[in-house]
Amino acid sequence: MKEVIKNTRKMVPLVHNITNYVTVNDVANVLLACGGSPIMSDDLMDATEITLICNALNINIGTLNERTIKTMHETLKKANAANHTCVLDPVGAGASKLRTETTLELLKTGHFDCIKGNISEIKTIFNGTGNTSGVDASELDKVTDSNLDEAIKFAKELAKKYQTIIAITGEIDIVSNSEKAYVIRNGVKMMGKITGTGCMLNGILAANLAANNNSLESAAVSVIEMGLAGEIASNRMSELDGNGSFRTYLLDAIYNMTDEMILKGAKVEQR
Amino acid sequence: MKEVIKNTRKMVPLVHNITNYVTVNDVANVLLACGGSPIMSDDLMDATEITLICNALNINIGTLNERTIKTMHETLKKANAANHTCVLDPVGAGASKLRTETTLELLKTGHFDCIKGNISEIKTIFNGTGNTSGVDASELDKVTDSNLDEAIKFAKELAKKYQTIIAITGEIDIVSNSEKAYVIRNGVKMMGKITGTGCMLNGILAANLAANNNSLESAAVSVIEMGLAGEIASNRMSELDGNGSFRTYLLDAIYNMTDEMILKGAKVEQR
Amino acid sequence: MKEVIKNTRKMVPLVHNITNYVTVNDVANVLLACGGSPIMSDDLMDATEITLICNALNINIGTLNERTIKTMHETLKKANAANHTCVLDPVGAGASKLRTETTLELLKTGHFDCIKGNISEIKTIFNGTGNTSGVDASELDKVTDSNLDEAIKFAKELAKKYQTIIAITGEIDIVSNSEKAYVIRNGVKMMGKITGTGCMLNGILAANLAANNNSLESAAVSVIEMGLAGEIASNRMSELDGNGSFRTYLLDAIYNMTDEMILKGAKVEQR
Repeated sequence: MKEVIKNTRKMVPLVHNITNYVTVNDVANVLLACGGSPIMSDDLMDATEITLICNALNINIGTLNERTIKTMHETLKKANAANHTCVLDPVGAGASKLRTETTLELLKTGHFDCIKGNISEIKTIFNGTGNTSGVDASELDKVTDSNLDEAIKFAKELAKKYQTIIAITGEIDIVSNSEKAYVIRNGVKMMGKITGTGCMLNGILAANLAANNNSLESAAVSVIEMGLAGEIASNRMSELDGNGSFRTYLLDAIYNMTDEMILKGAKVEQR
Repeated sequence: MKEVIKNTRKMVPLVHNITNYVTVNDVANVLLACGGSPIMSDDLMDATEITLICNALNINIGTLNERTIKTMHETLKKANAANHTCVLDPVGAGASKLRTETTLELLKTGHFDCIKGNISEIKTIFNGTGNTSGVDASELDKVTDSNLDEAIKFAKELAKKYQTIIAITGEIDIVSNSEKAYVIRNGVKMMGKITGTGCMLNGILAANLAANNNSLESAAVSVIEMGLAGEIASNRMSELDGNGSFRTYLLDAIYNMTDEMILKGAKVEQR
Repeated sequence: MKEVIKNTRKMVPLVHNITNYVTVNDVANVLLACGGSPIMSDDLMDATEITLICNALNINIGTLNERTIKTMHETLKKANAANHTCVLDPVGAGASKLRTETTLELLKTGHFDCIKGNISEIKTIFNGTGNTSGVDASELDKVTDSNLDEAIKFAKELAKKYQTIIAITGEIDIVSNSEKAYVIRNGVKMMGKITGTGCMLNGILAANLAANNNSLESAAVSVIEMGLAGEIASNRMSELDGNGSFRTYLLDAIYNMTDEMILKGAKVEQR
């Protein structure tokens, strides 16, 4: 866990993103901030070739359409065959049939090294349907101290089923494989007041996992990194600042993040 | 008019946006800033379902294409049937046949609670053709003190025809239904030096109208809110700042806006 | 060279952009910052009409797809016929067959007044294949003091072949027509830590060329303008700042740029 960020900055993993057009610029900039390098490509002919020169594939279904869904499937196969790190952000799974089905179909098509979502999105993967409220978790689903044990058990089970790392984000984050879970309490509410913190995190996960042998620890560090950056950005805000400045400060904080800061600032326990 | 923003922050209306890819990130962030919650979806299969879990639909034709035009029509029908707030931003109507026709066709397909545009775009709706200069109003069309009466009459007439609220933005803004018009003189020229102030305003309109029974007053407050935010952002600029910082400050100002600030800062008269 | 920026701010050239969705917002804002006015349109029916009311066409193949490639070709023909300034940014040419072929096909379809890329992308145009590393130049290709003469000769040759201006960007920039080359050493490494500096530069090139008779000097000024803005933005950074703030400061610096600053800050030699 001690050199995750250093490794990423040293390797500069090239991350291929098939992602939504809402936060795509933030994802590109956060990848540069965390030590990776971004490339975006979503045309079937282009993406299946571009992915071969990359180290990781980040699929985000945020503004999916028929054309890009096809690209996601074919590119995932290529990236799997090349043994690249693959991460999935099932944005809004549970909020529409197309999003739920696309998520489940992608999990049939290929393997992901990490699946990250809010609790409603992740539950949707487990149950096949969900009650995601737009792109936010449903209040009913939220992970709290009182249902934490249950949520960890659920995360481990799902991680086992898909032989993957499950990252559930929220006020309390859970990063788990089939055997071990990290419970993370970094982050601030302000992060929900800008678009794209989830999408950005998935970019960071792709880069950090690619540079750190897809280890559970590097996934946990990624989640801490984003949460800690939120805390730093929030502390920097002046009276006139709002979510515009916060967005800038968040990117700045990722840019200046070090492993030492993670070790010092992490609010993490192992379960 | 006293609690428009408070109502929006309390309800947190979920706004479905079918919008252009140029300013989509700004629209998402401004919706969070003003108290709403954004979701973007433009695939026919996804959008017609997503819109049902939302409170409002914001259609912006900025980078329209055959695929998304079809989605706009079908989604509008669903949103109308569900009695959701629907707002239209006919970006560039009058600048191309496709944009003009799409605007007119959408107005045949369904009902909008508010149509917002610059004077050239709004005139195009009235005349069926226009002379919009790119995405900006033609100099010939501009609303000034000398043609204000005429412009108000025109706005009321158009509002009556489509049983809607017409918001004409420019140096002088007009927000009108068939009977009553607000003339608003907030705002600064600097707002034309960033992309997306119009698109952002339409997001705010969607949220404020949804949380305030589609009232004319909430539309007027939305326009004042954006103009006042421009003034606040402009006042905050230092010598080295330019449109990059202004964009951030504008979002910050919306984030910190209150009904009290509107009441104090509004430059508005009723006509 | 003395009034390039002034001319642009006076004319306010309307630039039609068919560009990628990653950095499209930055391109729009940088066009406003440098004195132009942006419009984005990529639907075949819309774009071929929109381009006629513009002064320049900026084609960027960053996130190309079958639909937009077709639009690029047809719009280029229209813009050529109307004698508009046309610029090309062959993002990632050499990184995939689709990008390489699209670039070469566009050069058969019509004429560009300027082609700007990193050395790997530009070499790809010359050789028909390349080894571009994602969207960045390959280390093997980089222009250094030891291969500068060769690179200038190559730029002149390519400029002659396509009767165009070739702008090769990197630590050392070359802006050349068939007879004369400017070697530019402005800029900072930090510019590689945000996405879109290349895309933004192409927007500036479109505006400055359109307002200055497509002169070689105005292309050189554009490259100096972006590099100098990078230096100014970098100097403005505080300890907590990272690529988020840098991005904002860069836009600010373009917004505040004058011809006097260019003359004073340019690190340029003629070859």
